[in-house]
Amino acid sequence: MHLVMIGGSDAGISAALRARELDPGAEVTVVVADAYPNFSICGIPYYLSGEVTDWRNLAHRTTADLEATGMWLRLDTTARRIDVPARKLAVTTPDGTDELIGYDKLIVGTGAVPVRPPIGGLDQLGPDDGVHLLHSMGDTFAVMRTLEQAAPASAVIVGAGYIGLEMADALTTRGLQVTQMEQLPEVLPTVDPDLGAHVHALLSGHGVEVLVGTTVRQISRSGPGDAGRLCVEASTAAGQTLARHADMVLVVVGVRPDTALAAGAGAALGVRGAIAVDTGMRTGLPDVLAAGDCVVTHHRLLGETYLPLGTTAHKQGRVAGENALGGNREFAGSLGTQVVKIFDHAAARTGLRDHEATAAGYDPVTIAAEADDHKAYYPGSHRITMRITADRATGRLLGMQLFGHQHAEIAKRIDIAATAIFHGMTADAVSDLDLSYTPPLGSPWEAVQMGTQAWVRALGQH
Amino acid sequence: MHLVMIGGSDAGISAALRARELDPGAEVTVVVADAYPNFSICGIPYYLSGEVTDWRNLAHRTTADLEATGMWLRLDTTARRIDVPARKLAVTTPDGTDELIGYDKLIVGTGAVPVRPPIGGLDQLGPDDGVHLLHSMGDTFAVMRTLEQAAPASAVIVGAGYIGLEMADALTTRGLQVTQMEQLPEVLPTVDPDLGAHVHALLSGHGVEVLVGTTVRQISRSGPGDAGRLCVEASTAAGQTLARHADMVLVVVGVRPDTALAAGAGAALGVRGAIAVDTGMRTGLPDVLAAGDCVVTHHRLLGETYLPLGTTAHKQGRVAGENALGGNREFAGSLGTQVVKIFDHAAARTGLRDHEATAAGYDPVTIAAEADDHKAYYPGSHRITMRITADRATGRLLGMQLFGHQHAEIAKRIDIAATAIFHGMTADAVSDLDLSYTPPLGSPWEAVQMGTQAWVRALGQH
Repeated sequence: MHLVMIGGSDAGISAALRARELDPGAEVTVVVADAYPNFSICGIPYYLSGEVTDWRNLAHRTTADLEATGMWLRLDTTARRIDVPARKLAVTTPDGTDELIGYDKLIVGTGAVPVRPPIGGLDQLGPDDGVHLLHSMGDTFAVMRTLEQAAPASAVIVGAGYIGLEMADALTTRGLQVTQMEQLPEVLPTVDPDLGAHVHALLSGHGVEVLVGTTVRQISRSGPGDAGRLCVEASTAAGQTLARHADMVLVVVGVRPDTALAAGAGAALGVRGAIAVDTGMRTGLPDVLAAGDCVVTHHRLLGETYLPLGTTAHKQGRVAGENALGGNREFAGSLGTQVVKIFDHAAARTGLRDHEATAAGYDPVTIAAEADDHKAYYPGSHRITMRITADRATGRLLGMQLFGHQHAEIAKRIDIAATAIFHGMTADAVSDLDLSYTPPLGSPWEAVQMGTQAWVRALGQH
Repeated sequence: MHLVMIGGSDAGISAALRARELDPGAEVTVVVADAYPNFSICGIPYYLSGEVTDWRNLAHRTTADLEATGMWLRLDTTARRIDVPARKLAVTTPDGTDELIGYDKLIVGTGAVPVRPPIGGLDQLGPDDGVHLLHSMGDTFAVMRTLEQAAPASAVIVGAGYIGLEMADALTTRGLQVTQMEQLPEVLPTVDPDLGAHVHALLSGHGVEVLVGTTVRQISRSGPGDAGRLCVEASTAAGQTLARHADMVLVVVGVRPDTALAAGAGAALGVRGAIAVDTGMRTGLPDVLAAGDCVVTHHRLLGETYLPLGTTAHKQGRVAGENALGGNREFAGSLGTQVVKIFDHAAARTGLRDHEATAAGYDPVTIAAEADDHKAYYPGSHRITMRITADRATGRLLGMQLFGHQHAEIAKRIDIAATAIFHGMTADAVSDLDLSYTPPLGSPWEAVQMGTQAWVRALGQH
């Protein structure tokens, strides 16, 4: 049995590890387009900030670790074409020659590519000018070259999603003056604007200039005497124009699935153009599975959507690796659980926000609540800001959003909520969970439970 | 409708708050034996350590807060006798007069009393000599008087459970030289000795002399010239005797249910002599409910047991308050989820340990595992030591134990496991949970999932 994975990131490597774990006799080849298999893409901002001093440490596992599991890594090898009937993958090897790799089962893990927004000048300017997109290790090295060789004093970051915010933190930490431009009305648009406003204030408090409702129109080289070597022109929601000079520009406005290879082989595409797969990660093409940021996401509350996350890619890859060996594992579904650290705070969400729940056919009610991370009498307590969404008629908990200090255990608290939502608990039933308590680390009712109790009270559903 | 609660701690106050929340027309009286309703007993060590400077801050709510909800607090009022047929509670008021309080429903929340072990001299020596038991606010003030007035340089703590360990931390923080004596073979006997050994090393590293397998036999006044004013004599498991001199002695070896009042009224007693109640907190006596440390504990995996915890008392009190008003709420059951902070570390558990699971009829397998609290490449990561117990045949997750740095989110991680166990998940299915990830705060597979995956691998149940 010969399995071939295309892609050396979370999905491809997870599939390969799982296959080798389940069947040490399986031949497993991973085709990796660059020289960086199993790198932590989520870790890039911490290398660029200087907090991680050696980029090699961003690898979840080294090449040697991976090879020790018995998988075969084909680095700097580009997948070109899938011949489904013949079960062959055409690749170009590092020396430029073409080769056909036969497979019994193929797993496509081509991931996503960064969105290039329609900004004038973006196609003419590049890393050498200090204009960057940021997704791969190659992009990372290019940004680092700009940071080290051009010694920029200032940066404009286009986009205020996870990577945009992490990079605002990273570049501020490096000493750059950062301006963040976001087209939507508030930063971190994946959470409610009430929570986004807290993140906004946090950024401002750390010296980041935050411009929301601001659409970038043009990037160009500055004239002599300007404060930075680049000029970013934008228009506000009110129709006014503004410009900022900066030494570098980072465009991080999201990703789209990289599906060219699978689509070229005849794979059906689904939501947002991602590769259609069943919950067993089967594409519908014979012997071809797919997983990770290139496929549609099965969501426990939404059905099929597109919600690329590293955690999901790990799970889907694991399922694909098992099923490629003839298994019958199912991806249990995403809840879109995610967390981002920004300076010394964290913001997290799981499940649905109000408008998402409405669109999915629920009748949601969303409330705000606050709680201390631990008993306020013990030193060092932090306030947690919460938003709780549940269904009016059934009381079913649908979503939670949290914001607070990084030591307020935001990440693991959202995981408690995620586990409750996974099991379809009502807001009321969350109070039944037997959770831990000691005054320096919590309260007799965990903050998540105080949130769901506040929701129940707000609805008068005692 | 007149509800009377006996006891001003977690169960009584929770019941009163819940009743007032559900029915603002209900008359609610809380009979409190001392002047400290709704005090955080779990917070006492942090007052005695000096970290909480004003004991008044240990109150979850002030008397004024409580009265603002419409409940009537009868402070310094001792409950004497329950006349079940007449629905009257006999009390002694602060001025020493006897009074009968009529009720429609009574909730007994008399709590627990500290165990007095058979130690010679314990009945002859008391707070004025520097010998203390520690459970109530009254005990707390007595210990504080010793600390402030006798300025002890050293202490012997008898017992190494939660309060014993917290007090070792507290007194060390205050600058005392602490010796901890524990009869069992390892400290923190509520977790496996492998984890207890980590706590043991932590204590030693902070200068605490830890003597395990050591049974205290005698406490007496020291002679002239001795290093402390008290002498504690003990015998080891090997039959040797030893003695330590110290300026104060704290005896904290656990609690037993305080059931005299309920038993005197004819209530049936159950496990460990605690008041027998159904999951609705009904005692079987007409119109008499009971909750908190004085009642048996319904456990989701064990059935009926006795496992007094503040979190459980809050939940049981809430159920009792609702059912006293005619509701039909059920206590969903404990998992014994608990956490303790010791110096800068935390130890936590939920569910069953191996021998507990065996005794309950499971066929458990327990394994050890380790994981980083977040990606090791990001600064400040901490190692988490785990023990995972699940049933061999079904794979059902039965218990988890965690130890690690206080910033390793141990408390909330055990809550993720507790929520999974609450829902009867298998160790294998825990990998299906969609949990959050960002490199500074976690890993693509949450530590709890790495633990359950290690269990699955160890059993070869891929």
